[in-house]
Parts: sequence; structure tokens; C-alpha cells
Amino acid sequence: MALGKKVMTHPSRSLDEVIHQKNRLGILAVLAEADFVDFGYLKEVLDLTDGNLSRHLSVLEEQGLVSIKKTFEGRKPRTIVDATRRGRKALNEHLRAMQELINRVGVKEK
Amino acid sequence: MALGKKVMTHPSRSLDEVIHQKNRLGILAVLAEADFVDFGYLKEVLDLTDGNLSRHLSVLEEQGLVSIKKTFEGRKPRTIVDATRRGRKALNEHLRAMQELINRVGVKEK
Repeated sequence: MALGKKVMTHPSRSLDEVIHQKNRLGILAVLAEADFVDFGYLKEVLDLTDGNLSRHLSVLEEQGLVSIKKTFEGRKPRTIVDATRRGRKALNEHLRAMQELINRVGVKEK
Repeated sequence: MALGKKVMTHPSRSLDEVIHQKNRLGILAVLAEADFVDFGYLKEVLDLTDGNLSRHLSVLEEQGLVSIKKTFEGRKPRTIVDATRRGRKALNEHLRAMQELINRVGVKEK
């Protein structure tokens, strides 16, 4: 590429940082494969602390991307997390943007 | 997915946050398509301020992923940025991990 090449916007600019952050991307990706999951499962599969997972879930909940319900299984409290329709759509659009970037750069074999 | 499903690690965990951050990903992606670029080009194509771009370049330079050279074109100072071999390899590995995540979740048509 020449230094003076015409400047265009780059696909990375369309990445939404709410979703792009790796733990939130992980949460939405796990939820994309599930009807719902519990807090403990997310915590373990993504290797997060209680506080860290809670913080990321709050960000996603504030944006309407996940819903969080407190239930009981017998006497044991359980926190159930589900992606909203909006959350599933936003993840899909995000992965589409990432795919565009990957296709543009290309991935070389090892 | 059942709530009690066997817990496995998730591909999002292998994403390196130094590279995953959207502006740094953008920098490395632009450099993957170029031999080198100048500071002003990166700034414009990624829509960053001087301070923001400098900060992200410093992070990448500290990790040995880009090299930064100050030159002159006539009397005009110019900052030239290039990805190191390590930076190109790290981007490639990162995009490979993202592709794995995308393939796992799947991307639906609009």
C-alpha cells in the first residue's frame, strides 16, 4: 500500500465495544449455543470471578442484550441468564463484521 | 444445552486482549495489508485522535508487535509504523481464534 493511498474507513470501526470485549463476547457466544445457562456455568466456562462476571452481565443487561432471572431450585438460589432476541441479533451482526475483517486480512496456514 | 452439561473451556478465553481491543486490532489489520503506513493514515482510517492512536501504538510497541520510526520527508517529520514479524504472526493467530469462535456459533443470514 502506498502512503498516499486514498483513505477509507476500516471494518474494525464498526465493532461495538460492548459486545467486542472478550468476556462479553464469550457470554453471548455461550448463550448463542444454549436456551439459557446458569451463572455458575458461565463463570466456569469463561474462567471469571463472581464479580467480573456480574459486572459484564450488568453491562449486557443494561443494553438489553441479556436477561437475568433469579430462581430457586428447591432451597438453592439460582441465577439464570438468557440472551434476548436483540442480544442474539447483535452478536450475529458482530460476528459478521469480524468475518468481514478476517476475509479482508486473510488467515494464513500455520 | 442442559444446565448440568459438562463444562469445557470456551474459545473466547484464548483471545489476547492486547490484540483483541478494537483499535489495536484495527491497527494490526491495516498493517497486515501494507508494508508500512504513516501515523496520519492510521489516525484517519481508524478515526482516532493523536493521543488515542499514540497510546494504542505504545501498547503494541511494548509487546514487540509494531515498530515505530520517526523520519523526515524534506523538513516535515513523519512517523512510520510497521508490524513486526511477531505482530503479523500474533494477528494471524488471533484471527484464527476468532474464526474458530465464528464457526462454532455460526453466522446467520440477514
